[in-house]
Amino acid sequence: MPSRSDLANAIRALSMDAVQKAKSGHPGMPMGMADIAQVLWCDYLKHNPTNPQWFDRDRFMLSNGHGSMLQYSLLHLSGYDLGIEDLKQFRQLDSRTPGHPEFGYTPGVETTTGPLGQGFANAVGFALAEKTLGAQFNRKGHTIVDHYTYVFMGDGCMMEGVSHEAASLAGTQGLGKLIAFYDDNGISIDGEVDGWFTDDTVKRFESYGWQVIPRVNGHDPEEIDQAIETARANLEQPTLICCKTIIGFGSPNKEGKESSHGAALGDDEITLTREKLGWQHAPFEVPQDIYDAWDARGKGRKAESDWNDKFTEYKAAYPDLAAEFERRMKGELPANFEQVANDYIQSVNDKGETVASRKASQNAIEALAPNLPELFGGSADLAGSNLTLWSGAKGVSQAEPDGNYCFYGVREFGMTAIMNGFALHGGFRPYGATFLIFMEYARNAVRMSALMKQPVIHVYTHDSIGLGEDGPTHQPIEQLANLRLTPNLDAWRPADAVESAVAWKCAIQADDRPQALVFSRQGLPHQARSDEQIADIEKGGYVLKDCDGTPAAVIIATGSEVGLAVEAADQLNSAGTPTRVVSMPCTQRFDAQGAAYRESVLPNGIKRVAVEAGIADYWYKYVGLDGAILGMNSFGESAPAGDLYKHFGITAENLVKLVKETV
Amino acid sequence: MPSRSDLANAIRALSMDAVQKAKSGHPGMPMGMADIAQVLWCDYLKHNPTNPQWFDRDRFMLSNGHGSMLQYSLLHLSGYDLGIEDLKQFRQLDSRTPGHPEFGYTPGVETTTGPLGQGFANAVGFALAEKTLGAQFNRKGHTIVDHYTYVFMGDGCMMEGVSHEAASLAGTQGLGKLIAFYDDNGISIDGEVDGWFTDDTVKRFESYGWQVIPRVNGHDPEEIDQAIETARANLEQPTLICCKTIIGFGSPNKEGKESSHGAALGDDEITLTREKLGWQHAPFEVPQDIYDAWDARGKGRKAESDWNDKFTEYKAAYPDLAAEFERRMKGELPANFEQVANDYIQSVNDKGETVASRKASQNAIEALAPNLPELFGGSADLAGSNLTLWSGAKGVSQAEPDGNYCFYGVREFGMTAIMNGFALHGGFRPYGATFLIFMEYARNAVRMSALMKQPVIHVYTHDSIGLGEDGPTHQPIEQLANLRLTPNLDAWRPADAVESAVAWKCAIQADDRPQALVFSRQGLPHQARSDEQIADIEKGGYVLKDCDGTPAAVIIATGSEVGLAVEAADQLNSAGTPTRVVSMPCTQRFDAQGAAYRESVLPNGIKRVAVEAGIADYWYKYVGLDGAILGMNSFGESAPAGDLYKHFGITAENLVKLVKETV
Repeated sequence: MPSRSDLANAIRALSMDAVQKAKSGHPGMPMGMADIAQVLWCDYLKHNPTNPQWFDRDRFMLSNGHGSMLQYSLLHLSGYDLGIEDLKQFRQLDSRTPGHPEFGYTPGVETTTGPLGQGFANAVGFALAEKTLGAQFNRKGHTIVDHYTYVFMGDGCMMEGVSHEAASLAGTQGLGKLIAFYDDNGISIDGEVDGWFTDDTVKRFESYGWQVIPRVNGHDPEEIDQAIETARANLEQPTLICCKTIIGFGSPNKEGKESSHGAALGDDEITLTREKLGWQHAPFEVPQDIYDAWDARGKGRKAESDWNDKFTEYKAAYPDLAAEFERRMKGELPANFEQVANDYIQSVNDKGETVASRKASQNAIEALAPNLPELFGGSADLAGSNLTLWSGAKGVSQAEPDGNYCFYGVREFGMTAIMNGFALHGGFRPYGATFLIFMEYARNAVRMSALMKQPVIHVYTHDSIGLGEDGPTHQPIEQLANLRLTPNLDAWRPADAVESAVAWKCAIQADDRPQALVFSRQGLPHQARSDEQIADIEKGGYVLKDCDGTPAAVIIATGSEVGLAVEAADQLNSAGTPTRVVSMPCTQRFDAQGAAYRESVLPNGIKRVAVEAGIADYWYKYVGLDGAILGMNSFGESAPAGDLYKHFGITAENLVKLVKETV
Repeated sequence: MPSRSDLANAIRALSMDAVQKAKSGHPGMPMGMADIAQVLWCDYLKHNPTNPQWFDRDRFMLSNGHGSMLQYSLLHLSGYDLGIEDLKQFRQLDSRTPGHPEFGYTPGVETTTGPLGQGFANAVGFALAEKTLGAQFNRKGHTIVDHYTYVFMGDGCMMEGVSHEAASLAGTQGLGKLIAFYDDNGISIDGEVDGWFTDDTVKRFESYGWQVIPRVNGHDPEEIDQAIETARANLEQPTLICCKTIIGFGSPNKEGKESSHGAALGDDEITLTREKLGWQHAPFEVPQDIYDAWDARGKGRKAESDWNDKFTEYKAAYPDLAAEFERRMKGELPANFEQVANDYIQSVNDKGETVASRKASQNAIEALAPNLPELFGGSADLAGSNLTLWSGAKGVSQAEPDGNYCFYGVREFGMTAIMNGFALHGGFRPYGATFLIFMEYARNAVRMSALMKQPVIHVYTHDSIGLGEDGPTHQPIEQLANLRLTPNLDAWRPADAVESAVAWKCAIQADDRPQALVFSRQGLPHQARSDEQIADIEKGGYVLKDCDGTPAAVIIATGSEVGLAVEAADQLNSAGTPTRVVSMPCTQRFDAQGAAYRESVLPNGIKRVAVEAGIADYWYKYVGLDGAILGMNSFGESAPAGDLYKHFGITAENLVKLVKETV
């Protein structure tokens, strides 16, 4: 019977061997956290390696994702479909063992980590999702949603600001089934952390309302075991287990030092480490008795089968609820969604209101949300400005965990990473909002939603200088371009209420990529459209207003500048310059259309002029070197919106002039 | 003799009147913090309204910048060149009273605030700059650098992650002359903060090593006074004064409520507030006795004059040091800088090494820094990867505050906002580094450096898929474009050691805008250049390798892809397709050149092909619709760099093919 330390040493050996083979990677963390992982995975983690998708599994994630070999070792040893050959391919092209854990590449990896602090914030999202889903679906005697979220984190995660935002909110929400392990090894890349990181982390997390278990010896299985027991027993507070560990544990010359963090130990040091650990086996060789002791498949199958029995009982008692639960976990929309959405779009068109697109967005939520209990909304303390609340919105709280909305506080980055956690957990379609400019505070989490292809809906209002008096710190200029240049993400900037409704419909239907819905503060006039034009909005760009005969020029516009483009085109058409207006609410969607459609909208050889109250340069992609752009080339200013449009020359008059100069 | 509360009410009246006139703004915070501001400004703040540039003034900033009318009222009342007419122009175009405090618009405004938490982080930068400068220049009996940094902050600042990063580092550095006032009014935009913000802030800041003064009644001048005394007396720790206040203090129907936060109170409520406060004066009218009591000009002139005497003595005792101090405070480079830099560039060219541009960057720092004691370096825990250390680098710490380098820890956002504070304080040229991808964590602070036109040098290494195995979470794709699309910022991506040296020279010489220096992880071959070509690097784009006769195509390349472009051009030229290679290390610099120069580099009508291991779409600006781009259209992958270049098709072979297809 192998000892606990034999089991932990298997992780250490695989980690140092894989890093050595790749000549790249991070052995220090896996070697330091191996004992903690061994206790957690062998004695507590509820999971079924033969079905990584089993709904009620505990979720496990590495916020200190550079220690990926820890996770790969655990998955391999416990019986996931991740063979020793996969481990030998660590960090190679097309392998299932990339440098950092990546969602979708490796069975059992719940989220992509590496950018520090975000895995922890994702975990807060997972735990809040579990709690909310449980409150929505569990019934007396039928606890079908009941799993823990475990997250490992390092000094880097602790130093990052997003850890503050996420931990603070986790405390407020009392996420008792969230258990974080802090790998307190005293080392970060620049060396011993005393020079730059002197927080009393115990006190800090207590200040957030967490249960904190201090000074656990991260190499003593009994202390670890006791800490996990204490953590699991407290269902009112999240728990931080502070583990004192030695980075690179077992390496005679590198343990406790920065040199074990981010580079292969070297063959000689690995030999010495094998000796010191008493690990007699060749690289990538694990004795059968150790595999047997790690194997979690039997226990996992049993756990899943028990849960299936529970779910069968639940289904018998609450057939409708069970069906709804299954629908939501599959991520399927209600069967009538398309019809409801189309009817709503038609009604908006019929009404023909002039309204701020942020208000149009709220109207769309109000229309669609009653049919979509999976929608989980929120705002980073701007609910009344972003207009993300609707009549059925209910805040989640400790007292009322069964809500569908989170008051995130002024925490854009935390909110966004938490939304990523919601999407990854399943059962929810999260949307959350801030001003477009403060997308920047959350920027890397937006990117992570795109990298992981998660259907998160990022709502951004106050989309341009049109926000007016708050001035340049609040006026987005280059942010739209930034979103549009992000792979796997659709950014919408609707021109009126109809386009806003279509954007919401498309956002909800898109299940394989995040959406950014960008709305105006100020009122936008309704544009008249045929049924065909309404249908074409989904294509991302379409002819909104055509001229007689072949156009001399095409004006491409988005959002609040579409009205201005129509005004200019009217003048140009009257003055003998046949001008077409193309509304382009979503460039990524337009780019994804076939060449014939794109040509029908933007015919080759016809001069194009783009207008947008955002950075001009982005639009060369559509107008080329012989077209023209009426846009921003500087930051904004503080003044009423109308004055700013004039000040920066974004007017119908200037657009007319520019088109005439261009053709 | 007006009472303290009369003086505070002047702030309240001006603030509510100005917001009412603008029909936009935030009266709640100024009305809530007026009493605190009155005590601080009347009794403690060392400043000279007749010379807002006086070096040894205390620095004051509003991190909760939406309360700008507080600051404008203070500046107006205490005698700065900000008249009542300026206050009446609040939030109007071209006024000196924009919606949020903006550096450079208003005398006495030390930094631009509004994006929450950053003003606080700037303040940490100011305080660290003061301490470092003092340690570098003060001599026994000659304390010429000796001022406090005061910062006001709200609940929003407290919730933002950047407050964690900055506060934690301030604690580690023991910034005893940093004094923060927390406006603990229990209200944020979504309402009473209990639902989303339940931190024990006292405990939290104690965990960072701050002195915290809890439960100060923010409307009791004696308590405020006592707290400031206690704060000033502790020179070992920064102090947080937690002030319980009532937002919108004095408004009978709106005080203590969110409704006073971000909108005009309304004429009726203002009338009622005037009554309740006992403020009998018409809008924008302040009685002379109140002006007199506020007037800080006499005391300020005296303080400056005393300091001038001290400096005269210092100058007599330490003439060289005093001259150096004056040079640094003027932001002037050493007279021989240009020569030193040019000699260094020449020597790099002579050497002709193949080296990673991050290493070339370190070599450039090593060459230039001994001549530039104002350089203040750092890295967000990646010193050994960013290569920002040099032989004369010395970390600042409590024990050794006279360094020239900060180990910022894993705090990209905090680092960047702190660098902004250093630049604004004066006496330093800050540079700080992280991986290019983690620019995103700091993104809005980068933008703030550009908005404020501060000469901060942002160093970003690991600039592309060329970083290899760490994978897509660490590989920048759209980040270069994001930097290039930011107004007022130069982004450099040098092709080899010579371009790297020129980039550093230009970065140091640019005193009116930030620079982003983007470097490779991997080695880059030296390119041969004439003296003229070396001189042209500063123009941002130049012909690196020309063909015989008129080119059929121009390849535009940057950074690591320049070598590949040269290789492709060689093949194309041999095969009868005359091809020019343009190296474009800094597009913003190139755009700033005259039309004739740009035409000489990129002749009109000649097909262009851009190559860059970054998002392709950015380059339409230079190649147009009939050119072509070899770039990235997706996120990266985890694999050795060479494999990735092949995988994504960024090879000389493909470039040759693309040029042939294009011409």
